[in-house]
Amino acid sequence: MTSVLTREIEKLKKMVLALSAMAEKSLEKGFRALETRDLAMAQQVIDEDITIDEMEIELEEEGLKILALHQPVAIDLRFIVAVLRINSELERIGDLAVNLAERASFLSSQEWRQNIPEIPADISSMAEKAMEMVRLSLDALVNMDPGLARRVLEMDDIVDAMNREMFQMIYEKIRKDPDMVEGIIHLLSATRHLERVADHATNIAEDVIYMITGEIVRHQAEDFS
Amino acid sequence: MTSVLTREIEKLKKMVLALSAMAEKSLEKGFRALETRDLAMAQQVIDEDITIDEMEIELEEEGLKILALHQPVAIDLRFIVAVLRINSELERIGDLAVNLAERASFLSSQEWRQNIPEIPADISSMAEKAMEMVRLSLDALVNMDPGLARRVLEMDDIVDAMNREMFQMIYEKIRKDPDMVEGIIHLLSATRHLERVADHATNIAEDVIYMITGEIVRHQAEDFS
Repeated sequence: MTSVLTREIEKLKKMVLALSAMAEKSLEKGFRALETRDLAMAQQVIDEDITIDEMEIELEEEGLKILALHQPVAIDLRFIVAVLRINSELERIGDLAVNLAERASFLSSQEWRQNIPEIPADISSMAEKAMEMVRLSLDALVNMDPGLARRVLEMDDIVDAMNREMFQMIYEKIRKDPDMVEGIIHLLSATRHLERVADHATNIAEDVIYMITGEIVRHQAEDFS
Repeated sequence: MTSVLTREIEKLKKMVLALSAMAEKSLEKGFRALETRDLAMAQQVIDEDITIDEMEIELEEEGLKILALHQPVAIDLRFIVAVLRINSELERIGDLAVNLAERASFLSSQEWRQNIPEIPADISSMAEKAMEMVRLSLDALVNMDPGLARRVLEMDDIVDAMNREMFQMIYEKIRKDPDMVEGIIHLLSATRHLERVADHATNIAEDVIYMITGEIVRHQAEDFS
């Protein structure tokens, strides 16, 4: 019985890794599409979201099947429940990649092309940080490493600080050039999406810590405006 | 055995109802604080969030305990997994109530008091709609009523449309009065939080439909800017 359960859990781990690889790729492409105003890449992210949704559903069904058939307890039970929660987080990261791609589509459209602000370098570093957090939180899951997970929690404070600075910069830009408000607010949205990606990575890290140590960490999502 | 499980599930149902009542109250107070610039009420929402967080943790532990001790199957298993997911949604609704309260605090501060836009009536009707969605989605859970849950999904489209209009209105306001940008963007944030509340209610409704009918509905969170 135990070895069947172990195999099932290994399978679940592979599924969550496949989903996370997919969500990560989607996020990366969504942001590149925004940076380079690449309409085709943006459309690809939007189209591929259906695959992420399907993977999430399969993973959930698999998790429920294991719960029903094998009645795992202790760490195995906590692992499966954590995977079910992480599964939702990954699906939402996929949604945020789509949101970034939608911003990219909008800003690539003819009427905006001539008349929008450049992507500030700070947004790019915020994106890198958020993507790194997603990678680390998944590494923490795979390696059952609460130390890695804690690093993700620390990084979230940095992303929050970056987001705060971004808001100030954006207020300045709008005051200077109010006619650009719509384009600039699309950029503000992009930073908001990135901040939420970082929050989802933080949720994953918290689930990993809970799963391994039984310790409950809950962060309050920060919000600056 | 079955009757012990039935009692445990009843207890879980009561816990999720208590949590949802608390989250709903918090949301209502957070929005009233914003509407009336009531600093004391805002602080109360911020302080009470710890209770919501504790209730979420207790509910999760209770759910896991039932999974471990009673190995429920079929509809009972789906109910418990749905409750665990809904639990997270409610905790996030509580976080959004705090976010609204933080906007209220900010906009109540001396330096802003004289110089901020009124809360437009449209934001209030968006708030009413979002709060109604939360109530209905929980009614759908308690009464196991997929029809009610489907009404929530329909209402989400209305809230999305309201949000879209709000953005246009806010662009106009900023163009007319760029010096007010910071205050106005705080209002924009409030509408964004409300739109996310509606999304969480929609997630709850989707979980209810899944739980009862086994049918999976997943919405893509809309995003306009």
